[in-house]
Amino acid sequence: MAVEKVVAAVVDEIRSAGLVQLEVSARHVHLDKECVEVLFGKGYQLTHVRELSQPGQYLEQERVDVVGPKGTFKNVAVLGPERKHVQVEVSFSDAFALGINPPIRQSGDTKGSASVKLVGPKGEITIDEGAIVALRHVHMTPEDAERLGLVDNQVVSVEALTDRRTIFPDTVIRVSPNFRTRMHVDVDEAGAAHIAGFALGRIIK
Amino acid sequence: MAVEKVVAAVVDEIRSAGLVQLEVSARHVHLDKECVEVLFGKGYQLTHVRELSQPGQYLEQERVDVVGPKGTFKNVAVLGPERKHVQVEVSFSDAFALGINPPIRQSGDTKGSASVKLVGPKGEITIDEGAIVALRHVHMTPEDAERLGLVDNQVVSVEALTDRRTIFPDTVIRVSPNFRTRMHVDVDEAGAAHIAGFALGRIIK
Repeated sequence: MAVEKVVAAVVDEIRSAGLVQLEVSARHVHLDKECVEVLFGKGYQLTHVRELSQPGQYLEQERVDVVGPKGTFKNVAVLGPERKHVQVEVSFSDAFALGINPPIRQSGDTKGSASVKLVGPKGEITIDEGAIVALRHVHMTPEDAERLGLVDNQVVSVEALTDRRTIFPDTVIRVSPNFRTRMHVDVDEAGAAHIAGFALGRIIK
Repeated sequence: MAVEKVVAAVVDEIRSAGLVQLEVSARHVHLDKECVEVLFGKGYQLTHVRELSQPGQYLEQERVDVVGPKGTFKNVAVLGPERKHVQVEVSFSDAFALGINPPIRQSGDTKGSASVKLVGPKGEITIDEGAIVALRHVHMTPEDAERLGLVDNQVVSVEALTDRRTIFPDTVIRVSPNFRTRMHVDVDEAGAAHIAGFALGRIIK
């Protein structure tokens, strides 16, 4: 119990200092019902492997190939549950390798974004839109937001406190009781800042 | 002549405002004489394809494979002329794919850095050290340094003025009459900041 209290105190200290854990988000896809059925078969249900840091979000057992005009990534992770619209999140390095030109967007905002082909074991589908590079964002609980004096959609900078310090301006704070407080960066950002394993960022208002 | 004067005035304006052109430096190797002879044959001379932005530095026609414990990059660019010590410059994403753990170093400072195997058409060699991730740096002429009030080895931050603004702290100004004024970033940094084609950075003292 003493240890738990110490840990809780340290975590509180970290949070009140405006520090946030940085997590690397590699390329992945969120599928809608149509895509699941085309790629995996009529009536198919995705199979959870494990819950992600964001509650209710899962790494699924299924994998898909993402195909662009210039290149293919095989066995790309599928994150569940199913969404209303298909979304393919890549880094700019991925986009270059695929030969696509995705816009920088918040998750869910895929209108007019880039086209790619998805290939599964039972079929393939070219999505007219859905491929994006994630707009920088911090998932945050209402409690953490209040503690830090931040509100939903507020734009901050976040400095990665690593051995290759990098400051990420134009980072959106997204507040929801369904979130765990984490900043997600893509693999390019992770490489730029040498984020590997546990890493913290400092929120700069 | 009028156009040249306008261009010169614009370039001067850019420089005096503390702006610097950003260039992406993809993975590459600098070979020493021993490596050239092992990889390409006794007495072999590298063949220049074109001069790089830094005067006297060349992209060579020859290519080598860079092999790590977990992965290989085939046909990696060789930059010339030959150096006293072999040096392999990779991004952290490259390092992850190769399965190596290179330190962040200035060019030329390879003592105790990471080991990789190099493979050429005539042979292969495992270098005990030489693989690094480049310490962020700006090549600068003495004239530009004086204009901007900067000195050799001064550490600054540089903000990439792109549609994905990113600030790179801990960037070393390197001054030499042999340089052209440019900041080099690796492919991870380029992806993080969406540096593609012509891009400028702002030097923050």
